[in-house]
Amino acid sequence: MDDREAMRLAIACAHSVEGRTSPRPSVGAVVVRNGRVIGKGATSPPYGPHAEVHALREAGEAARGADLYATLEPCCITIHTPPCTKAIIEAGVRRVVVGSVDPNPLVCEQGFAQLRAAGIEIVTGVEAEETDAILRPFATFITQGRPHITAKWAMTLDGKLASHTGDAYWISGSQARVWVHNLRDRVDAIMVGAGTAHADNPQLTVRLTPEQREYERAERSGPLRVILATNGQLAPALHLLQPELASGTCVIVGTTCPAEQIARLQTYGVEVVPVSIDTQGQIDLHAALQALAGKGIMHVLLEGGAHLFGSAFDRGLIDSVAVFIAPKLVGGAEAPAPLKGTGLASMQDAVRLHHRRTRIINEDVLVEGELQWNTEESSRGE
Amino acid sequence: MDDREAMRLAIACAHSVEGRTSPRPSVGAVVVRNGRVIGKGATSPPYGPHAEVHALREAGEAARGADLYATLEPCCITIHTPPCTKAIIEAGVRRVVVGSVDPNPLVCEQGFAQLRAAGIEIVTGVEAEETDAILRPFATFITQGRPHITAKWAMTLDGKLASHTGDAYWISGSQARVWVHNLRDRVDAIMVGAGTAHADNPQLTVRLTPEQREYERAERSGPLRVILATNGQLAPALHLLQPELASGTCVIVGTTCPAEQIARLQTYGVEVVPVSIDTQGQIDLHAALQALAGKGIMHVLLEGGAHLFGSAFDRGLIDSVAVFIAPKLVGGAEAPAPLKGTGLASMQDAVRLHHRRTRIINEDVLVEGELQWNTEESSRGE
Repeated sequence: MDDREAMRLAIACAHSVEGRTSPRPSVGAVVVRNGRVIGKGATSPPYGPHAEVHALREAGEAARGADLYATLEPCCITIHTPPCTKAIIEAGVRRVVVGSVDPNPLVCEQGFAQLRAAGIEIVTGVEAEETDAILRPFATFITQGRPHITAKWAMTLDGKLASHTGDAYWISGSQARVWVHNLRDRVDAIMVGAGTAHADNPQLTVRLTPEQREYERAERSGPLRVILATNGQLAPALHLLQPELASGTCVIVGTTCPAEQIARLQTYGVEVVPVSIDTQGQIDLHAALQALAGKGIMHVLLEGGAHLFGSAFDRGLIDSVAVFIAPKLVGGAEAPAPLKGTGLASMQDAVRLHHRRTRIINEDVLVEGELQWNTEESSRGE
Repeated sequence: MDDREAMRLAIACAHSVEGRTSPRPSVGAVVVRNGRVIGKGATSPPYGPHAEVHALREAGEAARGADLYATLEPCCITIHTPPCTKAIIEAGVRRVVVGSVDPNPLVCEQGFAQLRAAGIEIVTGVEAEETDAILRPFATFITQGRPHITAKWAMTLDGKLASHTGDAYWISGSQARVWVHNLRDRVDAIMVGAGTAHADNPQLTVRLTPEQREYERAERSGPLRVILATNGQLAPALHLLQPELASGTCVIVGTTCPAEQIARLQTYGVEVVPVSIDTQGQIDLHAALQALAGKGIMHVLLEGGAHLFGSAFDRGLIDSVAVFIAPKLVGGAEAPAPLKGTGLASMQDAVRLHHRRTRIINEDVLVEGELQWNTEESSRGE
C-alpha cells in the first residue's frame, strides 16, 4: 500500500463523519504497519477524541514504528481534548503523512516541530486536493467566521429552474436527486427562502436507501432545516411546520416581524430566530449566517430559490456550487433563471469556478466548484 | 483494416465537404482492396459526380473485387448524374458497406436489390450513429421541406447569455470559439435576429487558422449570412452591411417593410427577401425558412438572440442544439436567458435531447443533441 492508497482510506473515514463533527473539521486517520491497516478513526462528535486518537487506540501497541495517515495536520493544542501530537509521540509512530494543512490560525507550525523533534518523519500534501475539499467548510468557518455556503440547483439546458408556470418536477433525473440527498447528508443545514418553501413545499430531509448511500454515516437528527421568512408568514400546511419536521426546523425572521407572528410560528414547534434586516427591508443574510454560526453550523446548503441565490451571490456569499444541467429545453421568457438580484455588469468580472469538477450523472451534467471571488467583488454591495 | 476503420475514413471524406454540397447530402466513400485504400471520394458540388463515383474512378481497374464503403446508401436513380448503383456494378465491386439508409423517399429499396442481383454483398449500419449525424441536415430538408436548424449559444453556469448590461464578451473560452467557427464552416447559412446584429455587430464569417481547422475543406464564399429584420431597419455601421460582407448577406424582412426601406438596404449590396408576417407582426419563421430552402439552404445555424431562439423553439423549429456552459456566474434578474418566447407550461413536456453528446472543451462544457419533439408539441402554436 503506497501513501496515496493509505490516504484514500483516511479520506473515506473523513467522509464517513461529514455533517457530524461541526464545529470541528471532519478528519480521517489510519495507522499502517507493514502495508496493513491496523487502526482507523474519524473525528468524534464535538468534545470527543480526534481521528488520530481513535486510529492509534485501535492499533494499540502495534502503532510503535507504524505510519500514521491523517487527512488534516494533527492538532498540537488543547481545546476540548489533549493535543494529537502528544498522542502520536507517545504511541511511537515512525512517520506521519498528512493531506491538508490546518487553516485554523491557532494551529501553529509547532505541531510539526514537536513531531520532528521526537524524530518522526513528516510528509504533507498527499491527496491534498480531496482533503482540502473535505476541509473547506471548516476553513470558511474558521477564517471568515460564518458557515460555508454551497448553492445547489438543477436547471434545463436553457438555464431555467422551472417552467413559466413554476413547474420544476423534475428537471434532473433520479440519479441526480440521489446525489443531492448524499450532499444533504454531508451538510449541517439546508436553507431555502420562503418563496421556495411555498412553491416546492420541500421536506429538506435526507432520504436515501442503504444502497443509495455514498458513505455509511452515523444516524443524526439533522441537517437543520432553515427557512428565511422576513415577515414570518408561512402557510400552516407546509411540510416543514408539521410535527415530525418542525422540531429540527429553524425559521429566521426579520427583527421587523411582529411578536404575535413569532409566537404563532413557535406553536408549531419550530425555532424562530429574529435577525436584523437590510436596507431593502429583507433579512440581512450576513446576520442570518452569523446566527447559524453561533449554533455551530459550519456548512449550509442553499437550495433556492432564485431570489435567495441572487441575493447571496450579490453579497459574495456563495462559496461553492453544485449545478445540474438537464438535457432538455423548456423555454419561456417568464421561466425563472437560477440567479435573480442585480448581478455583475461586465462579463469579464463574472465569478469563475476553481477546483472545477464536471461529470455526467446518468443524463445530467453536474458542474461543481468553488467560486473564485476577488476581494473587490466580494465587498461589492456591502 | 476492419469495416469500422474503413467507414471512419469514408466519414472523414464526408466531413470534408460539409457545407459545400447543398442541396445534396455530404457523402464520403472509400474503396478498399486487401486492406489498402485504393480510392477515396466525397460529394462534388451540386450537379457533379457523387462520392462513390470519385472513389471508384480513383481506384480504376483495381476496384474489381474490392470493397466499397459509403456513408450513405448509393443512389439508384438519375437526377443530375447517373445512378451510383450502375457505376458500382460496372466497376466489379465485390462488397458494399453502408452507414446510413437514404431518407430520400425517392430512393427506393431497388438500389440494394440491384446490387444484390449483381451478386454484390451488402452490409448496412456501420458507424451509423455518425453517418446519421452528418446526414441529418439533408434528412430534415428532404422530409420536412425546410432547412435543418441548429441553435448554438454559450451561457454562464447560471444560464445567462450576457450580463444585465448586455455584455457577452466572452462567456466561453477561446477553444470553444474555435469549435464554433468549425461549426460555421459546416453549415450553409448563419442566421441572427436584428437585435443580435445590433448588440453584437457580428461578422458571421468563418475565421480559422489552418491549425484550428477540424477538416480541410474547399474554399467557398459562404456561409450565407442572414439577418431577420421585420421592418428592415439596420444601422448602416453594421459589419454585415459593409462592402466586404454585404454581398454574401441576406436580409429577410416582413412584407410590411416599406419599399423605400428595401431599396435603401439594397444599396449596401445585400439581398433583401420579403416574407409574410405572423399574427404578432413579426417575420413568419416558417416563411423565412421556406425562402432559404428555395435557395438550396439545407442547414441553418441560429446564433441568437434570445428572442429568435424563443420564437423558433415555440414553433418547434429547433432541430439540434450546441450549448456551451462556461464555469462562471454573472447573476442578475435582468441578464438574458437563452430562450425568450412563451415556453412550455409543464416540465414533463420539456423537449429532451437525443443523440446527446457531452464533452469538455478546455474549461467549458459542450452539450450537443437533437431535440426530441413529439408531434403534438411541434404543432403547438401553429
